[in-house]
Amino acid sequence: MSVTAAQGFSAAGIAAGIKESGNPDLALVVNHGPRRAAAGVFTSNRVKAAPVLWSEQVLKGGEVTAVVLNSGGANACTGPKGFQDTHATAEKAAEVLTGHNAGEIAVASTGLIGTLLPMDKLLPGIETAAAALSEHGGEKAAIAIKTTDTVHKTAVAGGEGWTVGGMAKGAGMLAPGLATMLVVLTTDADVDAAGLDSALRAATRTTFDRVDSDGCMSTNDTVLLLASGASGITPEQGEFAEAVRAVCADLARQLIGDAEGASKDIRIEVVNAATEDDAVEVGRSIARNNLLKCAIHGEDPNWGRVLSAIGTTKAAFEPDQLNVAINDVWVCKNGGVGEDRDLVDMRYREVRITADLAAGTESAVIWANDLTADYVHENSAYSS
Amino acid sequence: MSVTAAQGFSAAGIAAGIKESGNPDLALVVNHGPRRAAAGVFTSNRVKAAPVLWSEQVLKGGEVTAVVLNSGGANACTGPKGFQDTHATAEKAAEVLTGHNAGEIAVASTGLIGTLLPMDKLLPGIETAAAALSEHGGEKAAIAIKTTDTVHKTAVAGGEGWTVGGMAKGAGMLAPGLATMLVVLTTDADVDAAGLDSALRAATRTTFDRVDSDGCMSTNDTVLLLASGASGITPEQGEFAEAVRAVCADLARQLIGDAEGASKDIRIEVVNAATEDDAVEVGRSIARNNLLKCAIHGEDPNWGRVLSAIGTTKAAFEPDQLNVAINDVWVCKNGGVGEDRDLVDMRYREVRITADLAAGTESAVIWANDLTADYVHENSAYSS
Repeated sequence: MSVTAAQGFSAAGIAAGIKESGNPDLALVVNHGPRRAAAGVFTSNRVKAAPVLWSEQVLKGGEVTAVVLNSGGANACTGPKGFQDTHATAEKAAEVLTGHNAGEIAVASTGLIGTLLPMDKLLPGIETAAAALSEHGGEKAAIAIKTTDTVHKTAVAGGEGWTVGGMAKGAGMLAPGLATMLVVLTTDADVDAAGLDSALRAATRTTFDRVDSDGCMSTNDTVLLLASGASGITPEQGEFAEAVRAVCADLARQLIGDAEGASKDIRIEVVNAATEDDAVEVGRSIARNNLLKCAIHGEDPNWGRVLSAIGTTKAAFEPDQLNVAINDVWVCKNGGVGEDRDLVDMRYREVRITADLAAGTESAVIWANDLTADYVHENSAYSS
Repeated sequence: MSVTAAQGFSAAGIAAGIKESGNPDLALVVNHGPRRAAAGVFTSNRVKAAPVLWSEQVLKGGEVTAVVLNSGGANACTGPKGFQDTHATAEKAAEVLTGHNAGEIAVASTGLIGTLLPMDKLLPGIETAAAALSEHGGEKAAIAIKTTDTVHKTAVAGGEGWTVGGMAKGAGMLAPGLATMLVVLTTDADVDAAGLDSALRAATRTTFDRVDSDGCMSTNDTVLLLASGASGITPEQGEFAEAVRAVCADLARQLIGDAEGASKDIRIEVVNAATEDDAVEVGRSIARNNLLKCAIHGEDPNWGRVLSAIGTTKAAFEPDQLNVAINDVWVCKNGGVGEDRDLVDMRYREVRITADLAAGTESAVIWANDLTADYVHENSAYSS
């Protein structure tokens, strides 16, 4: 599982002392080749963390030897000093791994925005992590990137003789514009950077990009895909892209399932839209409606709040042709009262909302969470 | 105070039995002239309630004799029957007031979306309300339109010999696209429909339109301004518009102060924006950030969440030139750490966030609320 499921990779996760709790907070993932191809997608937030600015530059070369990831601090809104710290992190990793330069080292950080990282702990931690590198270290790496995540998140897929594996963290500020929090995917398939980029962009567009737990886009979202080529196999591109998509979808589903304070996972499917963009706009509007999110928490099939959310969009539809189902009961038909709302059973964690725009043939699925008192408590504690 | 502060108006508020609680639920406001000019603005939600569709038509004539308002049901998403019910309400009021026709009667409703109104109670209630009409009935009318409001909301302003008064209700689904929940303003100034319309649109644009309590736009938002001309005075248009603006601003502030479950009122001022639209977009993005709203609830001056919200907008700014103050302490300077966050005192209900985009000279103020466990509780109860 995780980033060491594919051949040619080692990883480690250690406690460097960045977190005051003493929990693991530093992960290192190394690609031993023979190939070192890589692709990445990053947050579309215009306020980008230092490690995002750094890694975007690294990825332009299409080659990544190693990724250093830390929890316990986002290194965002930290000015020139924060960028210097990311640079020093990459330099240290290049030095420790020997024979490489900082320009091949991607860096990712997660935690509180607006504080500098304790470099006196992070830099020695890179040496400790390098010494702990193992072909079985994927699980420990996945644990070391957790912040408020209650569980670590890994996934794997693949084909004949090749594998795609990955890890993810993310539990809040979870409404990626291009990707979600920190994700590293690895493969031993022999695929070049262009093939990786194409597969990764296609995968994130319909997986991480359609997660909207709380409407808040992070400054640090990073998804990396590294290929070692160690299997010696070059899969057909469509088959490879599907494996990448499957791992992304699995990890995205795990992110929603572990969102801060959530008690429900809400699958919002918009059908019969005029365009896919319309379907996504409507799905996202429903996903971000706080009143609806409260109603779902209360197991109340309050379809009026779905319609009021749809009504704020520019999508093509006629109000008197809208249909809405909650857990397959069509509680709203033709914009008015439909089947008996008492038929809706909402006892389980997964809730399905279907919005039929009756305006075309396109569709999209957005995943969201409910809004709970636990979410408020977790996010109102002092700079959690 | 309220809608009977101006000469030429009477009002009533009674319990018609629409609410199961037996609380007041029906208000009637009558303009006795000599003038019956009127203007109105309505929700920009494309899913509009039956009374909004009706009143939009009535307002096209520029004359309104009376307004019937009910709480206890929004009459939204109720199909052709819901529209017939609104029509019947106007017909009944025209009949009871004698000498008028339904086309002069505006109707407004508020409450749960997706259920029909109990017309067997509402229609007799109009007779009861007409019998109770009084030149001192403004307060009772303001009470009868409450839903989850904990207090009724009225305001008054004016000039030499003329008055503008008003009432409002609204405590949730409070992010108007053009107006907020139900508001009726009256004046005895001798102003024609065009003058009313101009003053009302200018006023709502910078008052109700800049309230964003919970990001959820209602299907029923209605703001009406009625002029009786009973003072015989025609104020200078600028002076009149300023009085209308002052009453709207006063009522808008009261709405934020009484928002469901809120413990803080957040005044977000965006300054040095390239355009007013940029300032509003940034202010609204900050206002709708659930993580920031939780932080404010926890009295945590978490400026990183302000920056991450600004970063999602298309407004003109450079990330390393952003400055943010919370309660006048500039905790973020040039996109990084500024003054000591421990200097920020957040004990009081009103919290002021200033976002300096350093991109121009335009500004805007948006009012919002924090996100609390009480908001979740109030809105997760079964179809509250």
